[in-house]
Amino acid sequence: MTRPTQERALRTREVLLRAGAEVFDECGYAGAGINRILERAKVTAGALYFHFKSKEGLARAVMSAQPAVIEPRLNSRGLQRLVDITLVWAHELQVNALLRAGVRLSVEQGSFGLRDASSYLGWKEIMAECLHTAVDEDELLPTTRPDDIAEFLVGACTGVQLYSQLISDRADLPRRTVVMWRMLLPGIARPETIARIDLDVARGRSR
Amino acid sequence: MTRPTQERALRTREVLLRAGAEVFDECGYAGAGINRILERAKVTAGALYFHFKSKEGLARAVMSAQPAVIEPRLNSRGLQRLVDITLVWAHELQVNALLRAGVRLSVEQGSFGLRDASSYLGWKEIMAECLHTAVDEDELLPTTRPDDIAEFLVGACTGVQLYSQLISDRADLPRRTVVMWRMLLPGIARPETIARIDLDVARGRSR
Repeated sequence: MTRPTQERALRTREVLLRAGAEVFDECGYAGAGINRILERAKVTAGALYFHFKSKEGLARAVMSAQPAVIEPRLNSRGLQRLVDITLVWAHELQVNALLRAGVRLSVEQGSFGLRDASSYLGWKEIMAECLHTAVDEDELLPTTRPDDIAEFLVGACTGVQLYSQLISDRADLPRRTVVMWRMLLPGIARPETIARIDLDVARGRSR
Repeated sequence: MTRPTQERALRTREVLLRAGAEVFDECGYAGAGINRILERAKVTAGALYFHFKSKEGLARAVMSAQPAVIEPRLNSRGLQRLVDITLVWAHELQVNALLRAGVRLSVEQGSFGLRDASSYLGWKEIMAECLHTAVDEDELLPTTRPDDIAEFLVGACTGVQLYSQLISDRADLPRRTVVMWRMLLPGIARPETIARIDLDVARGRSR
């Protein structure tokens, strides 16, 4: 009969993750005090140290939680799925503190002495998987390499959102994401594929 | 007869800029103590406050100094010049502390409460100028917009270097820059232009 306790532990972990994300999103890593996170989550310090060991452990978990915000919403495949990941991501960054904190911590991690590529590598794996499906379904140009495209996209999206954040507080990020795809598609996809890829920004909101 | 004094002042400013860049590159903004910068530069606090007003002022100057490292080395035009800017940048980031500190501060600025888009906008202007020449010389596809391409490139290069830094300490950045261009060129340039664009990574080192 350990089930209810496990479920409660998972709920507590989720509450801590969300509270941590909100405080990291607002204050950055250095400004996010443990007490502030505990107050927001309404849990004890013991629970935080049980689940994440340290503030750094919580920050790493927030960085790695990004794909779980987006992946469950999608039902498309191949290259359209990859496009949809970026459109949902561009939209969610404006409304989802967990995603925003994950990106902020990933980008600023050097400022608090961390060097953790795992959130970037996690995105790369997810994107490469879409691209391998795209290869199987003959959507890409034969000269392209899925891993190169995936790694470029992770970097490009990271930088485009940074630019958009400085210019417009990310309000123009969905539009910039579409512009990115219009430029990129001719270099990676077959003309027949490009013709059927849907780049409507509304795809980022409707799922 | 104010000439020698003005020259000395400019030299002092340059020495402070380099010393600040080295310390920001090594320690980040928060870790870069004023005294450490003054020791490195072998100048007085008065000189620093005369030229930059504050540590934040020095950080802003370091961020904005990036193009001056690269532009004077180039003699190409149009789209090839834009490619060369990125190849020189990818190479210099491995050897030039001023450039490295500029990029680090631009990316991490949120962690010290700054929100200064001017180094990004500076790069955007320089890149858009190359692209306007490219339009005049009929190098681009008629559907493309120079400002969109320039803004995308500033973001993409920022993110690609962040990815490369985490994965390889930027050792693979020149290769990643070439991969980026192979993917991007078909979506922005005419086939005749692509055929004559030189993407040899050695272009980043030889100037």
